Amino acid sequence: MTDLNQIGLNAKKASVLLNRMMQEKKNNALRLCAEALLENANDILSANAVDLAIAEKNGMKSSLIDRLRLTKERLEGMAEGLKEIIALPDPIGEVLSIKIRPNGLNIGQKVVPLGVVGIIYESRPNVTADAFGLCFKTGNAVILRGGSDAIHSNKAIVKVIREGLTKAGCTPDAIQLIEDTSREKVVELMRMNRYIDVLIPRGGAGLIRTVVENSTIPVIETGTGNCHIYVDESADFAMALDIIDNAKTQRLGVCNACESLVIHKKISQEFIPQLVQRLSSKDIEIRADEEACSISSQCVPATEEDYGTEYLDRIISLKIVESIDEAIDHINYYNTKHSDAIITKDYSKAMKFLNEVDAAAVYVNASTRFTDGNEFGFGAEIGISTQKLHARGPMGLKALTTTKYIIMGDGQIR
Amino acid sequence: MTDLNQIGLNAKKASVLLNRMMQEKKNNALRLCAEALLENANDILSANAVDLAIAEKNGMKSSLIDRLRLTKERLEGMAEGLKEIIALPDPIGEVLSIKIRPNGLNIGQKVVPLGVVGIIYESRPNVTADAFGLCFKTGNAVILRGGSDAIHSNKAIVKVIREGLTKAGCTPDAIQLIEDTSREKVVELMRMNRYIDVLIPRGGAGLIRTVVENSTIPVIETGTGNCHIYVDESADFAMALDIIDNAKTQRLGVCNACESLVIHKKISQEFIPQLVQRLSSKDIEIRADEEACSISSQCVPATEEDYGTEYLDRIISLKIVESIDEAIDHINYYNTKHSDAIITKDYSKAMKFLNEVDAAAVYVNASTRFTDGNEFGFGAEIGISTQKLHARGPMGLKALTTTKYIIMGDGQIR
Repeated sequence: MTDLNQIGLNAKKASVLLNRMMQEKKNNALRLCAEALLENANDILSANAVDLAIAEKNGMKSSLIDRLRLTKERLEGMAEGLKEIIALPDPIGEVLSIKIRPNGLNIGQKVVPLGVVGIIYESRPNVTADAFGLCFKTGNAVILRGGSDAIHSNKAIVKVIREGLTKAGCTPDAIQLIEDTSREKVVELMRMNRYIDVLIPRGGAGLIRTVVENSTIPVIETGTGNCHIYVDESADFAMALDIIDNAKTQRLGVCNACESLVIHKKISQEFIPQLVQRLSSKDIEIRADEEACSISSQCVPATEEDYGTEYLDRIISLKIVESIDEAIDHINYYNTKHSDAIITKDYSKAMKFLNEVDAAAVYVNASTRFTDGNEFGFGAEIGISTQKLHARGPMGLKALTTTKYIIMGDGQIR
Repeated sequence: MTDLNQIGLNAKKASVLLNRMMQEKKNNALRLCAEALLENANDILSANAVDLAIAEKNGMKSSLIDRLRLTKERLEGMAEGLKEIIALPDPIGEVLSIKIRPNGLNIGQKVVPLGVVGIIYESRPNVTADAFGLCFKTGNAVILRGGSDAIHSNKAIVKVIREGLTKAGCTPDAIQLIEDTSREKVVELMRMNRYIDVLIPRGGAGLIRTVVENSTIPVIETGTGNCHIYVDESADFAMALDIIDNAKTQRLGVCNACESLVIHKKISQEFIPQLVQRLSSKDIEIRADEEACSISSQCVPATEEDYGTEYLDRIISLKIVESIDEAIDHINYYNTKHSDAIITKDYSKAMKFLNEVDAAAVYVNASTRFTDGNEFGFGAEIGISTQKLHARGPMGLKALTTTKYIIMGDGQIR
């Protein structure tokens, strides 16, 4: 399907039906979709093999090919993901409170679906099922626009899910895929305000920037993370080393990985050699300011650009500061408002950092790697918002809802 | 001041200071600003007289001149508005809850200012003080871009408020006005993502559309209201007439005024003549479908366009439907997602309407005119959101805040 107007109309109609759908029916459909993914595993894997063959022919990087690859186990993971969503509480329909006004009006605030959610993403085909599951659970119709690299896989997955929905007696238009992955179509998609209530880009910084700059539909910006760890003069060195090691190396290519260190001058002579030893044992290159380079010859001189870079690689930047104020100013200037941490034993420094760093998640004495829907206990995640409107930080089911006021009167006029 | 980059930098710096400011200091500053408005009333009124003289020379409509006009009483109202904001509870800094994860991490969600709020508005100079008051109370720096018609008034008001802030020991850059009201500057403003966290347009449909289509900054869409009242077959006629009369005529030019009626066919023969009598006594023209025109010769035939029009005038559209489903479909197609009401005695129709009409505020047996921050008990209002993201319906202080996660650990890693 490539007629965007028809896709929009279908989604709008589906969203009306989804808004009225009982929890039981939604959960049963999710179960049937999960089963359908497993029953049709061979079809999906064959389609994926086509994408992989094209990718290899085009010389795609092996790390990207790995993201694109589906296996029996990964399909089981996708099906498991849908089943886990069944178990989550359905937020839709809850009336948060009803207040009675002096004139007797009862004013309540009711949780309702957003309506139609558009998702623009890159080459990971598992996003297709994940995003559908979260949107469906919250009564939203979803329009997916995946990357061209994964088009055969995405078509196969969407076909199977639509069959599962039909079997459950639900409208298959709860999920639709834009099969034409041309640039013109995505630009058209980003201006379909009449049909789409929110657009969520998931992918690299370039994709997200394009969507923010071109969309007239409200966007939830996700993902880019230039995360900092500030090692205060009072830090426990062993804790600081463990947290930095974990935040940088536990998984390199993720948005909550640490990309930049800020070290208090008072401890730099003693701490930096230990840090260099720890990170070089993990093959991490340190790009540092002049002072740090003079402390350790293993540091490479950093440029201004380094401090603003999300490496997603075996590189980290480092800056020495003379005070916590300088640290906070540096972080607020260069961070992407994602996740930043302080390592300290000092109560007032901890409080100051929590209050003054401007980010979705601010940590004391813990790894930035915890910024994640599952780690936060949301059970699932549609992405990590780095903007301030609507949702900030890891987004669970609640981020896919809005509210409406319901007002019950008996003839009140002004 | 017209250098937008400098204005953005100033606002960002001011927002850092405002984020740290105690409630007491903010309230004291609001009090001094309110006093400053009264003490400098003559300067503001003289500046307003310049705007009025230009407007009259340019042949501005008298209703618009009335919006532009400041008087001693209106200035007192502005000052009173700032004082009322002092009394409202300050939402900033509250930690909504702290949850403890299995690994011992304490994860809290803290209410924080948005940062820098941009407001683009038209000719009502009272917005200048109102918007400042609400943004300041919530720790946000505000950048104002008012209409060229009110530029002398706005400059005078902003100058006085900045003096009040200085007297209170606060940064005057908590409020800045863009004095160059050219189109180029407003386009530049709408792309200042580096400095502005949210843009709120306040004004007519054209202004709002321009901002939605051109802004790369997240926007909160406000205002346009094509509000419906559906008179169900079971409606109490006297109640229906009172509510329609109130919703249409109590104030014509407001977004929560009723612009369109939907009448069940079963009662149309009996109800429409009574309706025509009531509305014609208030000089309201009824533009109706063929069937209604055949019932009353005082109805004027409606075009398709009428059903989508926010008149803000002595005109109302009318459509006869055969069922509540047809009524809901009609309303969901033509409404602007603002406010819609049903008049009914029937419980299940009331519930169905509340559940299925897609609007910020859905009413049973009450006038749509209640969609308003004060009427909802918020104490103040920055606008009425007609979008689904972030805030929906009347926006009080809470809509000017966001949250950040604060995570307190003792060395946790993944």
